[in-house]
Amino acid sequence: MSSETMTQTSGAERRIVISVDAMGGDRGAADVVAGLAASAQKNPEIHFILHGDEAEIGPLLAKRKILVGRCEVRHAPRVVTMEDKPSQVMRHGQGTSMWSTIESIRSGEAQAAVSCGNTGALMAVSMLQLRKMPGINRPAIGALWPSTNPAGFNVILDVGADVRAEAEDLLQYAMMGASYARNGLEVMRPRVGLLNVGTEEHKGRPGMKEAHDLIAGQAEAGHYDYVGFVEGGDIPSNRCDVIVTDGFTGNIALKTGEGTAKLISAFLREAFAATFMSKIAAMLALTSLKRMQKRIDPRRVNGGVFLGLNGTVVKSHGSADATGVSSAVKLAFQLAKSGFNERLAARVAPAAAAGQDPALSKDGTTG
Amino acid sequence: MSSETMTQTSGAERRIVISVDAMGGDRGAADVVAGLAASAQKNPEIHFILHGDEAEIGPLLAKRKILVGRCEVRHAPRVVTMEDKPSQVMRHGQGTSMWSTIESIRSGEAQAAVSCGNTGALMAVSMLQLRKMPGINRPAIGALWPSTNPAGFNVILDVGADVRAEAEDLLQYAMMGASYARNGLEVMRPRVGLLNVGTEEHKGRPGMKEAHDLIAGQAEAGHYDYVGFVEGGDIPSNRCDVIVTDGFTGNIALKTGEGTAKLISAFLREAFAATFMSKIAAMLALTSLKRMQKRIDPRRVNGGVFLGLNGTVVKSHGSADATGVSSAVKLAFQLAKSGFNERLAARVAPAAAAGQDPALSKDGTTG
Repeated sequence: MSSETMTQTSGAERRIVISVDAMGGDRGAADVVAGLAASAQKNPEIHFILHGDEAEIGPLLAKRKILVGRCEVRHAPRVVTMEDKPSQVMRHGQGTSMWSTIESIRSGEAQAAVSCGNTGALMAVSMLQLRKMPGINRPAIGALWPSTNPAGFNVILDVGADVRAEAEDLLQYAMMGASYARNGLEVMRPRVGLLNVGTEEHKGRPGMKEAHDLIAGQAEAGHYDYVGFVEGGDIPSNRCDVIVTDGFTGNIALKTGEGTAKLISAFLREAFAATFMSKIAAMLALTSLKRMQKRIDPRRVNGGVFLGLNGTVVKSHGSADATGVSSAVKLAFQLAKSGFNERLAARVAPAAAAGQDPALSKDGTTG
Repeated sequence: MSSETMTQTSGAERRIVISVDAMGGDRGAADVVAGLAASAQKNPEIHFILHGDEAEIGPLLAKRKILVGRCEVRHAPRVVTMEDKPSQVMRHGQGTSMWSTIESIRSGEAQAAVSCGNTGALMAVSMLQLRKMPGINRPAIGALWPSTNPAGFNVILDVGADVRAEAEDLLQYAMMGASYARNGLEVMRPRVGLLNVGTEEHKGRPGMKEAHDLIAGQAEAGHYDYVGFVEGGDIPSNRCDVIVTDGFTGNIALKTGEGTAKLISAFLREAFAATFMSKIAAMLALTSLKRMQKRIDPRRVNGGVFLGLNGTVVKSHGSADATGVSSAVKLAFQLAKSGFNERLAARVAPAAAAGQDPALSKDGTTG
């Protein structure tokens, strides 16, 4: 991506182009187009390049006047399915809507990409086309988690890019997560915690202590405060802003949290349907309940951000509906507009070049 | 434990003795004694041996008439703290209330034990005194998880006995978890799932595929149905009754679930306090909300059961209050009364002796 296409100015005068994969989600192109229409309605700066089967997308777009002149279609005859193996998509993925979506980032036509498709394949295609940022060994997926923080969200990473992570990778996750919290949540000096099964230093898996020491040692350079080991219960808490873990544990934690929220919503509905009195109560409380629901609705915090690549890619939930797609687009837009990826690169590249150089902290809080 | 002290009769005519650690929890002996009083009130069969500082426990017991003649005190001058390392407690733990609590199981005076203390130390002391069941390599901690199942709960293990687990260990967890679901939840043919980051067979950590094949192969012998890989979102679902995972992942999942439930409760309270209308609604809905709260209250599903030892030990939450202690005692009582541990031993011992012997299935559904 050339620097001309993406600046750190407020950008009110220029357009931001988001490259969107119309296919590959569980619900199909109709929900994606509806999501784009919702985003376009709310945001006059936003433009799209939409990738997928023209015969399917064309009629859907024709129904959305708000998208006229703001959404270009790129025909892609093939689709990556949820069952496709990442390694195969890497080799034979050309001509798919996912491949084409990432290509628009690489060429600089678009400033960020969104896809609801197969996570593993999307990461593979993104790594192949965009390449890893200098200094990054394993890219990660960062997710937002509703919390009692002032910002309302915590960042957790990795939630599924790679099932493995060495101590050095966990350090990079800490740096990238802190940068994301600064740019995405406006937390200037994020508190970073390392996920473990106990908060005592002797607990946990082999290698955890090494990661603990590395992350503690780079706190100044990374402009974060390190709070040490945290537990599962701290993920939605106000103890830290960034939770660092490997992609296996992070993915299970994320899905467990979503599953628990779903279970409680089901129980709540049952509770309110139980008696005549409780039904009246539910009606009276409707506005308050909706406000609460909104805070924990996974569709509203939809979007895992791929961190550590030369380009911004947002992975939307596979089952995202129009609301979900619109949330993912909003996130992509915000990150594109803030110039997040350039800031992140500026943060991690000198760290890689300088090794443990504490002089790194001179570059202020730009990343 | 001799067979005389524990039979599989209904036991209405005889007493069940629970050995309880009065010390070592976050809240101290007063909450433990209050919990025992609540249990004694509800259950005339129950008796206790209470271990701890006599000078502290004596006055607390004196205030509880219901416990007169039903609670014997064993003085233990020392306490295991949350900071003590398991290895140290194993070597120097004699004289602590925790050690003494487990001793009463080993001697056969009590049929089950409950402690709110340091999990790692409790497992170490239990393993040292009770020894592993024949055929078990790594004991596990099994926890109950509120779910949309007919039984209302799923079993998840291991939630923290050991941060590592080989494929063979995960198979043993499947056998033990199925047995626990049969005896604790009365699910005669439990559905077992293996926790992973995807449900496709090629996904996940190295070693997962091997565990997958082992667990699938022993389904007949273990009297369970194997549903394959499950994800974090399936833990509270009706897809399976038993979720098998290593102690690192299981512990983080359990605490993440608890943390999420706590977060939503906080949001719910805020939502109801928001407006005058919602406050009235909250009053009207009070009974329904309390019913819901009860279903997800971690205190009411309090108690991780140590599986794979020659004796039943229930680990209560460190921060358990009287309600929490009473739940843990109830669980210990149920398991003691059902003769669960003998059944479990009968299930896993022949499996170990016979290897992959399918003749094992002859012993019916006793374990």
